[in-house]
Amino acid sequence: MTSSNSATALAHPNIAFIKYWGNRDESLHIPSSSSISMNLADIFTQTQVILDLDLVCDELTLNGAPASQSSQQRVQNFLDQFRKLSGKKEYCRIFSTNNFPTSAGIASSASGFAALTLAAAKVYQLDINPLELSRIARLGSGSASRSIPGGFVQWVAGYDHQSSFAESFAPPDHWNLVDCIAVIGDDEKKVSSLEGHRLANSSPLQSARLESANSRIETCHTAILKKDFATLSDVVELDTNLMVAIMITSRPALFYWQPASLAVVFQVLLWRQNGLPVFYTLDAGASVHVICPQPYSREISSTLRTIPGVIQVIHSGVGGPAHIIEENI
Amino acid sequence: MTSSNSATALAHPNIAFIKYWGNRDESLHIPSSSSISMNLADIFTQTQVILDLDLVCDELTLNGAPASQSSQQRVQNFLDQFRKLSGKKEYCRIFSTNNFPTSAGIASSASGFAALTLAAAKVYQLDINPLELSRIARLGSGSASRSIPGGFVQWVAGYDHQSSFAESFAPPDHWNLVDCIAVIGDDEKKVSSLEGHRLANSSPLQSARLESANSRIETCHTAILKKDFATLSDVVELDTNLMVAIMITSRPALFYWQPASLAVVFQVLLWRQNGLPVFYTLDAGASVHVICPQPYSREISSTLRTIPGVIQVIHSGVGGPAHIIEENI
Repeated sequence: MTSSNSATALAHPNIAFIKYWGNRDESLHIPSSSSISMNLADIFTQTQVILDLDLVCDELTLNGAPASQSSQQRVQNFLDQFRKLSGKKEYCRIFSTNNFPTSAGIASSASGFAALTLAAAKVYQLDINPLELSRIARLGSGSASRSIPGGFVQWVAGYDHQSSFAESFAPPDHWNLVDCIAVIGDDEKKVSSLEGHRLANSSPLQSARLESANSRIETCHTAILKKDFATLSDVVELDTNLMVAIMITSRPALFYWQPASLAVVFQVLLWRQNGLPVFYTLDAGASVHVICPQPYSREISSTLRTIPGVIQVIHSGVGGPAHIIEENI
Repeated sequence: MTSSNSATALAHPNIAFIKYWGNRDESLHIPSSSSISMNLADIFTQTQVILDLDLVCDELTLNGAPASQSSQQRVQNFLDQFRKLSGKKEYCRIFSTNNFPTSAGIASSASGFAALTLAAAKVYQLDINPLELSRIARLGSGSASRSIPGGFVQWVAGYDHQSSFAESFAPPDHWNLVDCIAVIGDDEKKVSSLEGHRLANSSPLQSARLESANSRIETCHTAILKKDFATLSDVVELDTNLMVAIMITSRPALFYWQPASLAVVFQVLLWRQNGLPVFYTLDAGASVHVICPQPYSREISSTLRTIPGVIQVIHSGVGGPAHIIEENI
């Protein structure tokens, strides 16, 4: 090895409260509307990047195994920007691991690209501020921009590379919410969220959804700052259902919900009827994120585990920003 | 008994291919958009109306038992029009029975009010043409207007009482489609479709749905006339999903789908992937209507019966118009 430059970064996945679904600019991942999310403390991706003069291309190892050709290529294209910015030509070995099961239906692209962005910036010795890190992470995967800052985060849609970035508006300890992720299996090969974003504009409802998106952003933002759980429940479930509405009216229609997902949703609605502070949200997958204040999370999780079709329940509080955990430059 | 005037009428429920969801005028049931449906031959409501001078109000017996106070009142208000039109003041005994289980999730208000309209017009000795019968039935229950004519029916939305009526555009023997109704139970007390129509405008997506409604009417109309099953599948499933999109984004959100409904929908999508001509649609209930050409219906029904949550499968071909089956005037 002719270079021992290496850095390891850790980043958390995030769960969106106001959704990103559809792009204004597909290649730059400029979204059609702003989004709000919460980082998930207890789950993370850890990524080591090692600069290596002997390599002729980047080499990506995911959870201990060589990544697919398409993932290798996506990462190499992504790292090209760091080489361009730094003027260095070296390729990298990248070792990336998730502490959550890949089959759990938790998108690892957000935490993955956020961790990779931090580690790569370090080994290529680029001094980049957090907003710019968020912009760069966005180019790897849109929602990765939201995994750069910590706590409760807003990704301002913007209209070009410079104006589209994510920022924290409340730290992790602002509100002790817990995400109880009801992990639900998915037999069929699903449409990737990348392809889903592309299909969003084929729904006759997408423009109506976007027209009202800013008001939901404001409502959600204020509800989080005020810790107004009832208003947050209301706006997050509406925004989730609006995304599902777009999915099922795209051409072709996208069904990420499984029968068990609906069973979990009904359980949440029943709980709330009975006065429990809890709401649901979903991403482009079958798993249901069940959000509640921390004191309720144990009771909720143990009931979720009894619902047929729920494989496991993963718990997580509010996570901090992506950060470097080891470096050797 | 001082009058023996009596008439019995029979009418079929209908399944909408292009949906009625939301009113432009709630009291007159002027819908926000036109709809298309198919009558269901094998299920029906049979209603006997007996004029009786001794009565001081109308008396409704539903499936052998006295109807609820609210149903009695709804029917009495409905029959008031016939008294007004005819100048007769007598009230009626009404015996109405369905040959399908009430719990089957098949709306009986369409066939019920269509049969009642015909029988009442007969006993009050009103000579009313079919279009006007459809207008009057509409006042009882919007979709009852579609159960007056036979076969494949279009309900022109219109803008007032005169312009809003249903007409057949192809007779029952035009196309041998079969509706295999996967009956799915429904534990919770659901929001009535009457209330659902009222909530439609609270969805931020309803106006976008309505904007594109006429083009779906045209596509569906042409597909039926041309017996183009692939196009019909496509437009009916899209229109169904658009209605579901409105339901789940109403305030409050309405969930008529049950987990088992989704399981049936996935089975239908799988069948079609495998080349079987079949599509799904739903109304304001959990049951799924699975439509196919007659030769496929036996195979499809027997598989539907094996899906957990499906209580029974009811078969029906294309039905004729509402008609008088007995009279004694």
